[in-house]
Amino acid sequence: MSISVNDGVFMAEALQLAARGLYTTEPNPRVGCVIVRDNEVVGRGFHTFAGGPHAEIEALQEAGERAKGATVYVTLEPCAHHGKTPPCVEALIRAKVARVVAAMVDPNPLVGGKGLARLEAAGIAADSGLMAAEAAALNPGFISRMTRQRPWVRVKLAASLDGRTAMASGESQWITGEAARADVHRLRARSSAILTGIGTVLEDDPQLTVRLSSQDLGVDANVPQPIRIVLDRQGQLSANACLLSDEISPVWVATSQAAEAPLRQRLPTHIRIQALPEREGHLDLAALWTWLAEEQINEVMVESGPKLTGALLEGGWIDECMIYLAPCFMGADARGLFDLSIGLMSERRPVQINDIRRVGTDWRLRCSFPSNQNV
Amino acid sequence: MSISVNDGVFMAEALQLAARGLYTTEPNPRVGCVIVRDNEVVGRGFHTFAGGPHAEIEALQEAGERAKGATVYVTLEPCAHHGKTPPCVEALIRAKVARVVAAMVDPNPLVGGKGLARLEAAGIAADSGLMAAEAAALNPGFISRMTRQRPWVRVKLAASLDGRTAMASGESQWITGEAARADVHRLRARSSAILTGIGTVLEDDPQLTVRLSSQDLGVDANVPQPIRIVLDRQGQLSANACLLSDEISPVWVATSQAAEAPLRQRLPTHIRIQALPEREGHLDLAALWTWLAEEQINEVMVESGPKLTGALLEGGWIDECMIYLAPCFMGADARGLFDLSIGLMSERRPVQINDIRRVGTDWRLRCSFPSNQNV
Repeated sequence: MSISVNDGVFMAEALQLAARGLYTTEPNPRVGCVIVRDNEVVGRGFHTFAGGPHAEIEALQEAGERAKGATVYVTLEPCAHHGKTPPCVEALIRAKVARVVAAMVDPNPLVGGKGLARLEAAGIAADSGLMAAEAAALNPGFISRMTRQRPWVRVKLAASLDGRTAMASGESQWITGEAARADVHRLRARSSAILTGIGTVLEDDPQLTVRLSSQDLGVDANVPQPIRIVLDRQGQLSANACLLSDEISPVWVATSQAAEAPLRQRLPTHIRIQALPEREGHLDLAALWTWLAEEQINEVMVESGPKLTGALLEGGWIDECMIYLAPCFMGADARGLFDLSIGLMSERRPVQINDIRRVGTDWRLRCSFPSNQNV
Repeated sequence: MSISVNDGVFMAEALQLAARGLYTTEPNPRVGCVIVRDNEVVGRGFHTFAGGPHAEIEALQEAGERAKGATVYVTLEPCAHHGKTPPCVEALIRAKVARVVAAMVDPNPLVGGKGLARLEAAGIAADSGLMAAEAAALNPGFISRMTRQRPWVRVKLAASLDGRTAMASGESQWITGEAARADVHRLRARSSAILTGIGTVLEDDPQLTVRLSSQDLGVDANVPQPIRIVLDRQGQLSANACLLSDEISPVWVATSQAAEAPLRQRLPTHIRIQALPEREGHLDLAALWTWLAEEQINEVMVESGPKLTGALLEGGWIDECMIYLAPCFMGADARGLFDLSIGLMSERRPVQINDIRRVGTDWRLRCSFPSNQNV
């Protein structure tokens, strides 16, 4: 079966619908659906929150009888299995749609392709792959978890044009302007978790919550706060930390086996404490990701100092790096972006800049690392 | 007299013509001229090199008899005085043009306005100010020399995304890619002089010449090499420096009075040595600029290490900063952009980014400093 120009138009609308779930679907993927009969859209839907209806079901409900003989555009292969809700493929078969176009198959290797196969077995034409890259970009965390058993790791950095993140004293508020800081809160809001190091907690005592309302974010649904995770190998976290002063979202502490018991004694019982293996004197980051993927954490946003960001860069763990460059110079004594020691030009880390744009008075660079082995 | 839409169209062409002299007119300004009769361009000209015909004369020659009753668009007020060539206003009066539109008046306060006044006295309508900012942008150095008695100072920097210019060892070749390096050679070619510090000469032993041909630069005329100037307070320059190994362009050495005589003994006689006063243990930069302006240096390009760039930033002497950001990280041990010590966030230097664009694999930021007192 061939793909037409109209197919692209309708899939683009399905992608836009999917994006409306950006802040609310986790741990589920963001999915949008458009149902078209005689070149007219008769049903639209998107997944809003886990446990709520899938995009296809919403769209089928709007379409009603008109779904019969229609084409269904959906940004992710319809599910064939019973999860929190009944399988979407059965609903599509019951509605007697003629054709289903999925932007991408389910990235879960255990179920990928099964939904489309079930549709075809029921006599419904089924295509996939239309605007697959755009669909994948909606769900980097979900896909990473399904295919790599680890979350998508996004590091946020704010620096002066001469690459400095704080004065020698630690003073850093505020390098970037209001618009950049609001942008950071949007990134937090789309993340399942915010990861930081104990050094940042001890020095800056941050709250690490989303301080934008649903209205600010342009969504109707309630936006869940990301889980806040502190890497604290030696168990230095104080019960007085600002992070623990509210119950806006859970706080998880990853620590060493040696420090686990003392932390449990010291911290309130609602704080989750997880012991991780150590490796070369640090918490084992591979074990961290495995744990977080098991906990259905899709996108992790790292907001920390140069020690943790340096270790993440060194380990090849950074999937995406958002650098906010502020139009100022902070001088030679100020702190750098990464605690990373490189001696030779040939060892410098290549960066791929995927996007560069102005955010208020600052510039935002979205980068990745071509040398990472992302498997 | 009013300015019409057509006036803008023809002045834009005159500006484009003027830019063709970018690499060759110094110490003269870049000037273009278009002569229009009955909405038809009958003459075009631009100034190519000092001593050669002015733009107006070239355009009048092409127009011939058709200049009579025509409108003349010129990017800089026509000269009323005898320089290396006879005054252009007299030629315009003889050609019986009807109207002259100048983008800007002559920035030299001694002659500014005199050309237009002389034309009006001869019954020729004379306007100025059309696209004045664009015209001024063609000649930052000439204007600076006329109005501030100092050259336009452009600092070139090449750094990694984390703001590093060299490894701790000094290794720095090459941070940026080929396209950025060619762009640097274009900046050199438009400069009257390249300024560096003795530290850079001792460490990198650079040649600091333009290694692009006239053809590469897209011009017919011979492109003069910029003068190479070394700041060498203590007289450490060796006769074996790569700079001195060719006679591609003059080398000037600015030094202290104490080091002048030993340098004269040591260096070849064709090297110009200039003693400058000292100030707080450094060569007095104000005296440097005065000297260079007297020597008709319009645009100075600084290519040096963090010591000189830091002193220039500190002194508020940088008019324009071209930062080439390479897509890599070089780590915390690598060297920074400026030897500049700032202790508090409130003391950080604000930078205005006037342009940001991709140059090959790198990004170029054209910056200025709103806090400089540029008078």
